[in-house]
Amino acid sequence: MAQTPSWICPSCGFRESVFEKYYWRCPRCGSPLSIEYEVVGDITSSNNMWLRYYGFMPFTPEKTRGEGLTPLVEEKLSSHRLLFKLEYLNPSGSFKDRGTALAVYYGYKMGYKKAVVDTSGNTGISVALYSRLYGLEPTIVMPKQAPEGKKRAVLKLGGKLVEAEGRTGASKVVEEYIRSEDVYYVAHLWNPLYIVGHATIAYEVFEEYGVPDYVIAPIGSGGLILSLMYGFEKLREVGLAKKAPIVIGVQGYSCQPIYEAMYGTRSEGEESTLADGIMVANPPRTSEIVNSLRKYHGKVVLVGNTDVLNAMKELWNWGFLVEPTSATVYAAYEKLKREIPSSSSVLLVLTGSGLKTL
Amino acid sequence: MAQTPSWICPSCGFRESVFEKYYWRCPRCGSPLSIEYEVVGDITSSNNMWLRYYGFMPFTPEKTRGEGLTPLVEEKLSSHRLLFKLEYLNPSGSFKDRGTALAVYYGYKMGYKKAVVDTSGNTGISVALYSRLYGLEPTIVMPKQAPEGKKRAVLKLGGKLVEAEGRTGASKVVEEYIRSEDVYYVAHLWNPLYIVGHATIAYEVFEEYGVPDYVIAPIGSGGLILSLMYGFEKLREVGLAKKAPIVIGVQGYSCQPIYEAMYGTRSEGEESTLADGIMVANPPRTSEIVNSLRKYHGKVVLVGNTDVLNAMKELWNWGFLVEPTSATVYAAYEKLKREIPSSSSVLLVLTGSGLKTL
Repeated sequence: MAQTPSWICPSCGFRESVFEKYYWRCPRCGSPLSIEYEVVGDITSSNNMWLRYYGFMPFTPEKTRGEGLTPLVEEKLSSHRLLFKLEYLNPSGSFKDRGTALAVYYGYKMGYKKAVVDTSGNTGISVALYSRLYGLEPTIVMPKQAPEGKKRAVLKLGGKLVEAEGRTGASKVVEEYIRSEDVYYVAHLWNPLYIVGHATIAYEVFEEYGVPDYVIAPIGSGGLILSLMYGFEKLREVGLAKKAPIVIGVQGYSCQPIYEAMYGTRSEGEESTLADGIMVANPPRTSEIVNSLRKYHGKVVLVGNTDVLNAMKELWNWGFLVEPTSATVYAAYEKLKREIPSSSSVLLVLTGSGLKTL
Repeated sequence: MAQTPSWICPSCGFRESVFEKYYWRCPRCGSPLSIEYEVVGDITSSNNMWLRYYGFMPFTPEKTRGEGLTPLVEEKLSSHRLLFKLEYLNPSGSFKDRGTALAVYYGYKMGYKKAVVDTSGNTGISVALYSRLYGLEPTIVMPKQAPEGKKRAVLKLGGKLVEAEGRTGASKVVEEYIRSEDVYYVAHLWNPLYIVGHATIAYEVFEEYGVPDYVIAPIGSGGLILSLMYGFEKLREVGLAKKAPIVIGVQGYSCQPIYEAMYGTRSEGEESTLADGIMVANPPRTSEIVNSLRKYHGKVVLVGNTDVLNAMKELWNWGFLVEPTSATVYAAYEKLKREIPSSSSVLLVLTGSGLKTL
């Protein structure tokens, strides 16, 4: 019989079946939880991502809106082979749909009737979409400064929009909501179902290409980069992959908590306010991210607004209609390319759609 | 040796190799051209749509931006099985990318350095994208009234935007441009490469589901609905499919040329200005569309703004982030559902992204 998926706390050892109760963080010590379950590692040929990778999942959502199985577009440069993963072609326009589809399904199965999340934008659209799909009432708390297009998308999806003072203000608003027991706090910065869900990017890249030499992804909460490392690790554990990629995370000069934790110092540079999706001041999983990056010989690269604007222009010229936050990965590649050995393959995860911010 | 693809004119019999010269319409009689080539009907397992369906293509583009292979999402209602084809998840946010990727590649192979197109919006974004990809300079002529988001997308893609008085004005502007021999008139309303390209929707639906009982798609120029009929017909010709679907086209009360040609009369109803993508007053292929619809036991259904708004609200609630023009198909389904036999499968093609018009 398959092992029941469990929440486990790597800090204090807390452990409980995920079907018993939901905790957005460890009820004993307040640390971020992990999820433990049996990974059998089967891959099927289904066009439904959840059925295709059921062998890597703790459980499988009943519904889909076509999340995942996004295109992988290759560009051979003289120096490197670039692999662009078009995550902005997910149903709500960002990779967040992979985690949200799983996390909101779980909330529905656990009987919640309402969902709430604090977000810089993309997660809000995604949570509104899947909450409506499963019949939960979504409340989306966003900073006032979030792009207007993202706010409108939440409203059109039937979400209740609450505007707050920055991301810190948003977290405070959420605290009020989650005093009520019937509200599911989706908590994408904490909820390990997001890591399990986003890891499907690694399975797709592996199926289509194999393991790339390098992976470049933005770090906001760090959930994406943790997921990629988690996914490639699982592929090794089940014997499918033979190596791990070198993982490079990108932050902006204006908000560099992972850089600081990794190198013990701040680095000065131009402000990076354009990359609104990665302005997360205190990622709950900071030490986990730093440890994983070290394990994977990774590093953190910082970029500023000029880097982002140039990279974004270049990506649009190439036909990749991304938002500024997504352009950080190409900006980082531009900074690093001389250090990357010739003919290496480099995966660039293009996270969010530029159509929301026209 | 494979037959060389040829332009042929069904009206006057004109015929010439497509690699000889490009004609956006018959150089002898001015009618829309067709393209004739050998359909071998092979399907491969490639994730590149052009390699996957090379057996249905006159030639294969060298590059891709991940067009095609969009999700097919099934919803079982008590009465029918609805199959939503999420064409709004194409790289530029509409199904047009399927035709444009092929048509602009052809222009590039023929040595053109500039491209021009007159469009209500979506085709312009698509042509700008693929023109930049292949190094052609794109000029996009749009009605002044086109949504601002669509204009901004063209500009961000590095396209030259020319605003004209309505679609008729746009066509006049184009006439000026195409006096110059080095300008490729993409002419999506005329160019048969769009029909061949869009027909891939039928191959994908067939692979994933089989032949649905009904197909509902909007009619602007009618290119999409012709493509669907063309695609399902080819699947029969090569022996893969056993039946053809019943095809239903949707127009708005404000612009109903195919309805008029089909039934010989206008039908009065509420205006349908919200469906800006299907306001095409004189589709060049009108008689071809009417003949094909009759052959497939099809019909044309008219909708108005209230129908569109209700349908759009419903689709967003379901998690389909479409633009108003795309919502016409669900509005038509709502009008028709009592006539559709119980347990029929109904394909609804959701053509364009709602993120462009937030």
